[in-house]
Amino acid sequence: MSVHHEAGGTPVVDEQERWARAAWSALAEPGDVVAGALLAQLGAVQAWQWVVDSAAGLVDVPARAAPTGDAPARLVRAVERWAPRMTRLAAEGWSVHRPPPNGVSHVRVLVPGDREWPAGLDDLGAAAPACLWVRGDPAAARWPSTGRARTAALVGARAATAYGERVAIDLAAGLVDAGFVVVSGGAYGVDAAAHRGALASGGRTLVVVAGGVDRAYPAGNVRLIEEAVASGGAVVGEVPPGSLPTRSRFLQRNRLIAALGAATVVVEAAWRSGALSTANHAARLNRPVGAVPGPVTSMASAGCHRLLREGVATCVTDAAEVVELAGALGADLAPEPRVAARGLDGVDALGRRVHDALGTRTARPTAEVARVAGVTTAEAIEALGSLELAGLARHEGSGWRAEGVT
Amino acid sequence: MSVHHEAGGTPVVDEQERWARAAWSALAEPGDVVAGALLAQLGAVQAWQWVVDSAAGLVDVPARAAPTGDAPARLVRAVERWAPRMTRLAAEGWSVHRPPPNGVSHVRVLVPGDREWPAGLDDLGAAAPACLWVRGDPAAARWPSTGRARTAALVGARAATAYGERVAIDLAAGLVDAGFVVVSGGAYGVDAAAHRGALASGGRTLVVVAGGVDRAYPAGNVRLIEEAVASGGAVVGEVPPGSLPTRSRFLQRNRLIAALGAATVVVEAAWRSGALSTANHAARLNRPVGAVPGPVTSMASAGCHRLLREGVATCVTDAAEVVELAGALGADLAPEPRVAARGLDGVDALGRRVHDALGTRTARPTAEVARVAGVTTAEAIEALGSLELAGLARHEGSGWRAEGVT
Repeated sequence: MSVHHEAGGTPVVDEQERWARAAWSALAEPGDVVAGALLAQLGAVQAWQWVVDSAAGLVDVPARAAPTGDAPARLVRAVERWAPRMTRLAAEGWSVHRPPPNGVSHVRVLVPGDREWPAGLDDLGAAAPACLWVRGDPAAARWPSTGRARTAALVGARAATAYGERVAIDLAAGLVDAGFVVVSGGAYGVDAAAHRGALASGGRTLVVVAGGVDRAYPAGNVRLIEEAVASGGAVVGEVPPGSLPTRSRFLQRNRLIAALGAATVVVEAAWRSGALSTANHAARLNRPVGAVPGPVTSMASAGCHRLLREGVATCVTDAAEVVELAGALGADLAPEPRVAARGLDGVDALGRRVHDALGTRTARPTAEVARVAGVTTAEAIEALGSLELAGLARHEGSGWRAEGVT
Repeated sequence: MSVHHEAGGTPVVDEQERWARAAWSALAEPGDVVAGALLAQLGAVQAWQWVVDSAAGLVDVPARAAPTGDAPARLVRAVERWAPRMTRLAAEGWSVHRPPPNGVSHVRVLVPGDREWPAGLDDLGAAAPACLWVRGDPAAARWPSTGRARTAALVGARAATAYGERVAIDLAAGLVDAGFVVVSGGAYGVDAAAHRGALASGGRTLVVVAGGVDRAYPAGNVRLIEEAVASGGAVVGEVPPGSLPTRSRFLQRNRLIAALGAATVVVEAAWRSGALSTANHAARLNRPVGAVPGPVTSMASAGCHRLLREGVATCVTDAAEVVELAGALGADLAPEPRVAARGLDGVDALGRRVHDALGTRTARPTAEVARVAGVTTAEAIEALGSLELAGLARHEGSGWRAEGVT
C-alpha cells in the first residue's frame, strides 16, 4: 500500500475518516448531493456504515431520513443506486478500517481538515468532492484561499484556433509572472496551451482530470501532464485511481475547476461548449468570470461573446485584467495601456478650440484668433499662454501660429 | 436665395424663428449650452436681439441674466465671445428678418417644430443644435423617434482593419434588411464601410458632418457621400454651409450622431478614439451602446473592449443583436444561432449517465449498466427506454448497447 494518508507532516484528520472519504469517492458519482449531505451530517465513517446497514436491510431507510432533511424517497433511491456498487467495492477491499486498496505510488488523498485541502472546494456545499486524489505537490492545489500564491482557471475549446492557443499561452505566462498557479483541465486546445504557457514561464499548473489521476488523458497530452507534475504542480481528481473519465464525470469535473480557481477565464468556446459550463459553475460560486473576446467571424469565440452578452463574464484582454479579476477587490487594478501622449492630450476644451483657430504657416492677431475660435479675447489670451507653454503655439510678431501638432 | 425654408408642405414654424436659428448656428459654436439656454428661454428671435443689444451696450448683461438662471459672469463671457462674430455676421447679411445669406441649392434648415425635425436631438437639452442643415431628404433625419423606420449609428476608427470594415459592411447591410437607416460620420474606415454597406443593400444612410453640408469631407469620400444623398439619404450638420470642420466641431458632431441613432455601435476603435466619445454621448443620453469585439491582439479593437469592460457597451456580434439593442424592449430579441442538434442534446443528466455506461460494441445487462452508471436498476430501465426512443441505445439479446453517438 503506497498511498500516503497524511497530508504534510502533521496528520490532523482521523485516518478512518480519510479512508471512509476515499471509499465514498469510489461509491458515489461526482456531484452526488445526497452523498454530500450524508457526509456532512454523519461524518464519512458513520455515513458509510449507514449505507452498509441500509443496503443489508438492517435499518429502515425512511426512518433514518431525518438526519439530512432529505425526502425519504430520495434517500431510498440513493441507497438503491449505491448498494450494487458497494457490494463490488467491499469485494475489492474498500473499507473504513483500511487504506484504499487501489494504491498508486505518489498519490495522496486530501480531505477537509488537511492543511493542503483547497478551502475553495467547500463553497460547493453538498456537491463538494468527498476527497481529492492528488498526484504531485498536494500544496499546489491549496488555493484559492490560502498562502500568497493565487489560482486562476483558464479554460476553453478543444477545437481552439491558433489565436485562442496563442492568447491562452500569453495569459498563462502573464499569470505566472504575477505569482499565480494556472488551473485547467488538461484537454487539447485551450487547456493544453494554458498549461504549456505556465510551464514555459517556469510556473506551476494544476491539471484537474475527470478520471483517475494515474490516467493521463487525453493520451496526446501525457508528456505535458507529466511535466506539470514534475514542475511543482499536480494532477487532481475526485474519483479513485483507475477510474474512467466518463462524460458525466467531465461535466462534474468542470465544477472542480471553477471551485479551484479564484477566477475562471474562458479563452475560446463555441456557442455550446463545456467551457461555458465551467464559467456558469464559477458564476454560481460567486467567483469572477472572464471571457476573452475574439473576431465575431470566428465560431470559436461565439461562446465567449455569449458570456459577455449574458452578463456572466467580464471582458478580459490580457493577464493584468485577469489578475484584476481574480485579485482582491481594488488591490490589482489593471494599468491603463500606455499610449504615447499626443500633442493635444491634456489640453482643455478651450485650449483645443483656440488651437484649432491658429494657422500653421502664418501668425494671426489675437483678436482674429478669438473671433475664429468663437471665444472672448480674454479667453484666447489665457489659452494661448497655456498652448505656448505646452509648445503648441508660438508668438510671432503681433500674432500667433500653431506649432508641434500636424 | 435658394435655401428652402419650409419643411414639407406645411410650414408650422414661424419663418423669423427659422432664420434666427440659422443665424444662431452661425453665431454660437456647436454645443454652446449658454446659447441653448437662451434659445429655449427667449426664443431664437428675442435671444438674437438680446445679444445685439447686449453687445451694443443697450442692455446690462448681468441685469438680464435672470431669464436663463445662468450665472451673470457666464452670460457676460458668452456675449463677449459672440460679439466679435456677430459684427462679421451682420456684415455678411445674417438677420432674423431675412433668410440666411449663404444659401446653397437643395439645402434645407430644419428647426424644432418641423415635421422632419429629429425629436431625438431634443434629448441633448441645452446642447441641442440651433438648427439642422440638411442636404438630401429631410425626412431621412427624422428618426429615431417617429415612423416605422429606425436608426442605428455605426461608428469607429478611421484606421480600421479589413476585419472592422468587413463587420461594418455586414452590420449595415443587416440593419438595412431590418428596415433601419444607418447613421455615421462619413469618415474613412468604419464610417465609410457602414455607409457603403447600407447603400450596397439598397438602404438609406445619414452622413453627419462636422462642417458645412456642402463640403464633402474627407475628399476621398465625396462620391460615397453624394451616393448617400442620391439614394434617399442625407448629409446633415449643425453649422452653416461653407463652415470648416474644425477639431472641436468634430468632437461636438459626435453628440449629434449619438442623438440621431436609436442605438450606437462601435465597430472598431483604438484605446483613445473619437468613436468612444460618440459611445459615451449615447450612454449619457440613455441610448443603448454596443461594441463589436475583436482579437485582443488587435489595437483597433482595444477601444471596443474598453467599452465592454467599463460596462458602457453591450457585446454585439451581428445585425440581429444590434436590432435587439436598438429595438423596442423585448420586441426584437436576437435569435439564438442555429446549431445542429447533437445526439445527447435534450437528454437529461440521468440519461447521459446511463448512456455513458453503455458499450458501443457489446450489449450489457441492465443491472450492469445500472452499476456502472451508479444509478438504480429502475432508473436505468427508465433512462434506457428514453434513450432507445431517441435512437441512442439499442436492446440486444438480454442487454443494451449505445447507438448513434460516437
